[in-house]
Formats: sequence, structure tokens, C-alpha cells
Amino acid sequence: MTNHDAARESDPSTNELVERRYGAAHPGPLADGNATINLQLRHRSVRKFLPAEVTDAQLELIVAAAQSGSQSSNLQVWSVVAVRDQARKDRISAALGGHPYIEHCSVFLVWTADFNRNTRIVEAAHGTEVDSVGYLENTLVSFVDSGIAGQNALLAAESLGLGGVFVGSVRNNPLELSRELNLPEYVFPVVGLAVGVPDPTERASTKPRLPQRAVLHHEQYDAGAWESASREYEQHLADYYADYGRENYSWAFTLNRRIGSVEGMHGRHQIREWLAAKGFDSE
Amino acid sequence: MTNHDAARESDPSTNELVERRYGAAHPGPLADGNATINLQLRHRSVRKFLPAEVTDAQLELIVAAAQSGSQSSNLQVWSVVAVRDQARKDRISAALGGHPYIEHCSVFLVWTADFNRNTRIVEAAHGTEVDSVGYLENTLVSFVDSGIAGQNALLAAESLGLGGVFVGSVRNNPLELSRELNLPEYVFPVVGLAVGVPDPTERASTKPRLPQRAVLHHEQYDAGAWESASREYEQHLADYYADYGRENYSWAFTLNRRIGSVEGMHGRHQIREWLAAKGFDSE
Repeated sequence: MTNHDAARESDPSTNELVERRYGAAHPGPLADGNATINLQLRHRSVRKFLPAEVTDAQLELIVAAAQSGSQSSNLQVWSVVAVRDQARKDRISAALGGHPYIEHCSVFLVWTADFNRNTRIVEAAHGTEVDSVGYLENTLVSFVDSGIAGQNALLAAESLGLGGVFVGSVRNNPLELSRELNLPEYVFPVVGLAVGVPDPTERASTKPRLPQRAVLHHEQYDAGAWESASREYEQHLADYYADYGRENYSWAFTLNRRIGSVEGMHGRHQIREWLAAKGFDSE
Repeated sequence: MTNHDAARESDPSTNELVERRYGAAHPGPLADGNATINLQLRHRSVRKFLPAEVTDAQLELIVAAAQSGSQSSNLQVWSVVAVRDQARKDRISAALGGHPYIEHCSVFLVWTADFNRNTRIVEAAHGTEVDSVGYLENTLVSFVDSGIAGQNALLAAESLGLGGVFVGSVRNNPLELSRELNLPEYVFPVVGLAVGVPDPTERASTKPRLPQRAVLHHEQYDAGAWESASREYEQHLADYYADYGRENYSWAFTLNRRIGSVEGMHGRHQIREWLAAKGFDSE
């Protein structure tokens, strides 16, 4: 038993961690936490890394944790490509728009939707052509299951004292990335995960989230839940960013820039074509 | 600190858990594990529940863990609807094809892609119409982030001694489910999670997974990795099912039934239309 399992006197309690996340005491009593939940609550994205290695022994344990997560109908429709080569990380970073955390992480994990393997298996066993990969449902299954696997991987890494950040910008230029990683037909980049040893000088802490009442609905969706919750959240998030010298932060402004228009999508409005180019017609 | 944190003498080691998952000793040395990783490695889907409650205090801690997971650009594009009402669980089960674990779980969590909240926030703050929800990229972001959140939720539940199973069949009939949950425009069911107190009489153990060499690629995708790995896996999985009285199980046969033709999709080949009906045009 290593790392976080040895709870220290100075470790924050579950209640303190919840309060940091929401910026306010939870309205009701919470169940007793434990080391795993406290690790989840403590999560922050790490974007600055020390020049230290994630070992193969660590990587293989992280991937074992990822594979142990649920997989829809046991289809196992993802693969992960681990990139350590510095020149390749640099080229990938450049292709995706320039991200120091890709260049400086120890290992850049690219989670891919993978229907290639199962297609080969079915063709070899039955001699039949696979007829359903082109449906959107199969694209979606592989994206959900990549999220499940990726989160297990990141939490496993965090439990080992490592850190990381998910990298959605693998979808800024998935076809160039596919060439770099030699991805065949029916394999498509879903999300990246840069992993390494956290640089303790990085200035970041617990990112505030929306009050729970905005996202947890009981029995039916409450269409009015967002209003007071988002006002409260605007203030909480602005205070968080002000602590890092960023004044007048507005979540609504950020949302508008990202979802208000096609320009905020970094080219990803073309993803349907890009998916189709790799066999995911997403009909 | 509760439950799994108190490692018992009789608890299997990380190496033993990895061997159970792969059906063979890991080829190289693994990093030292810890309570979180052992919990991840021990995961199994629970489909039989005792008639016992998941408390609000537990549920709120589980959702706090889910919200603490990474979220693309902090968009927070999911909501979760918690269903406890027996009549509603029964109706949902019937609408999705009949699933005892939905009827008998304590709480059925429906993870939804939610661009409704952010659309309302942007419209209220800027008076502008949101222009990008209809792109497939935004559908995909919310599905990946629902996977990340859902996995954090399930692992948190498991750390509390609860269990559960992801339910992809929410996508068998998402429009009926949307009516039942009163989901507005821009909210769509992604995946369900049935949670409860595990019935210890359920016969199931560690589901074998493909050898790691089939899913973990180094530097570039290895298009030949599947072949020997899938042969090895066929045998391992057949042995697993034989232990439960199911003889002559074939993974290739199961894959062919599921991805070999449209008939295996339980109607989900229509999901693009269903998404569009809720505002996710997925262009």
C-alpha cells in the first residue's frame, strides 16, 4: 500500500474537499468518505510536469485499471497508443495547435475508438463482412467507453502520485494524428491523456464546479434548476480565477465563446467528415 | 476511512488481481498497487441487489465524486437524473426491454448529455442564440464526459460497499425515456447506472479482458497485435463462462451477433434521428 493510502493527519477531510469543490458547505450530511473518494474529490488537471519518467511498470498497471472498467457488452472497442518519443510528442503537439503539456509529459496516451480489432476477429472467424460500424451508435459506444477507461487510467495514475490532463484537442486534427500513430481503418482518436510527475510549482487547485442541485435531478429533470445555481457559480468561479490573478472571469462569456458559435470549435465542426474518413460514417 | 481502505490479510494482492483479469501472470513487473487500484481491478458489474437503500448522503457523495472528474473546457455538459420511485423504475425497465436490475436497484441514475443548461445561461447573459449544439463534436464531448463522470460515480459507489452496472440500453428507447424523465430540448440519455447493495448470492466474478498487448500500443498502432491475443482470449473467456455452466462460449460469435449486422443493434441504428429529435443534430 503506497501513496495516498497512508492518510496523514494533515490530509483534508471528505467534507473539506467537498466544500472546496462547491465553494460552500454541502447542504446536508454526507456519507463517510474514504481514500478513493478523497482522491477523486482532490482531482485537478496537471499541465506542468517534472522531467521524470512514468515507468513501464506504472503504465501497465494504469492500463490494467483502465481495462478493468466496464465495457459495453464486453466489446472492448478502444485501444490506447502510448507515445514517449520526444520528437513524436513534439510533432503531435504542433499538429494539434501547440500544447506544452504534450511536449513535457512523460507519456502521452491517445485513447482511440477501435472497431478494427473486432472487425478483423469477426472476419477471421466467420468470413463475413462487418456491417454496423458505420452507425453513429457504434461511434458513441466507443467514445463513452473511452471516457470510462480514460478516467480509470487517470485516477490510477493519481493514486500512484502521478498527474495528468485530458486532451480533447486530439480532435482538432485527428487525421494528421492518425497518420503519426499509423491508425488503420476503424480506429479514431477520442481523447488524449498527458501523464507525468506533477511539477509542484504549478499554480492550480481545486476547480470549482456547479452546485450539485444544478446537475443532480430527482425523478424528473428540473428545467429551472440552472438559474440560481449558475448565478452562485459565476461568483465562485470568478473568485477562484481572481486568486490566480485573472480578474473579471465570466463563465457565461467562456461558454458563449465555446458553444455560442461555430468559430469556438477549433475546426471540430468537421468531425463527422473526419470520422467518415476512418470508416466511422456515423449514420 | 471505511470499507476497502482497511486492507485485510485475506485481500488479494495487486498482482493476483491483475492475473485474475488477464488469466495469466503479467509478463513484466508491475508497480506497487494501492487500495484505489485494487478496487478498480476488482470491479465487476453487479446486477442483483438486496432490498436496501442507497442513502441520500451516499448519493450526494457519489455525485460530488462524479463532478470532480475532468470536464472538457469546464463546460459541464451533463446532468444526472436519479430515479428511486418503484413505478417509474418499472416503467423505464419495460420501455427499455425489461431489465430486472433497473427494477431492483435502489437508485437508477440516468446520465444525460445536457446542453440545455449552458444554452439557457448563454442566452440569459448575452441574449444571443447558441449556434453549435447541432454539431457532432458537441454530442461526442458530452458522451465522453458522461463516461468520465459515470465511472467516477461507479467507483465511488464501489468504495462505499455498493455496486452497480452501466445500462447502455437507455439508448434502446431514448425518446420514451426522455418523456418519462421530462428531459427538455438539448438533453439526451447517454448511459444509465443502476446502483444498490450487492446481493452476495449473485454468481459472477472478474470478467476476463483481452491481453494487454492487444490494446496497449507503443508509439504507433500495431495492426497485427490482435491475432494471437484474441486466440488466447477466446480460450480464457470460454473457461470463465464454463465455470458458470455456459459451455462453448465464443467471443467471436458474440461480436458477430453485435457488430456483424444491423439486427444486433436493438434499434439503435436509429440513434441519429433520435438525437436530432432532442436538438442534437450531430452534423
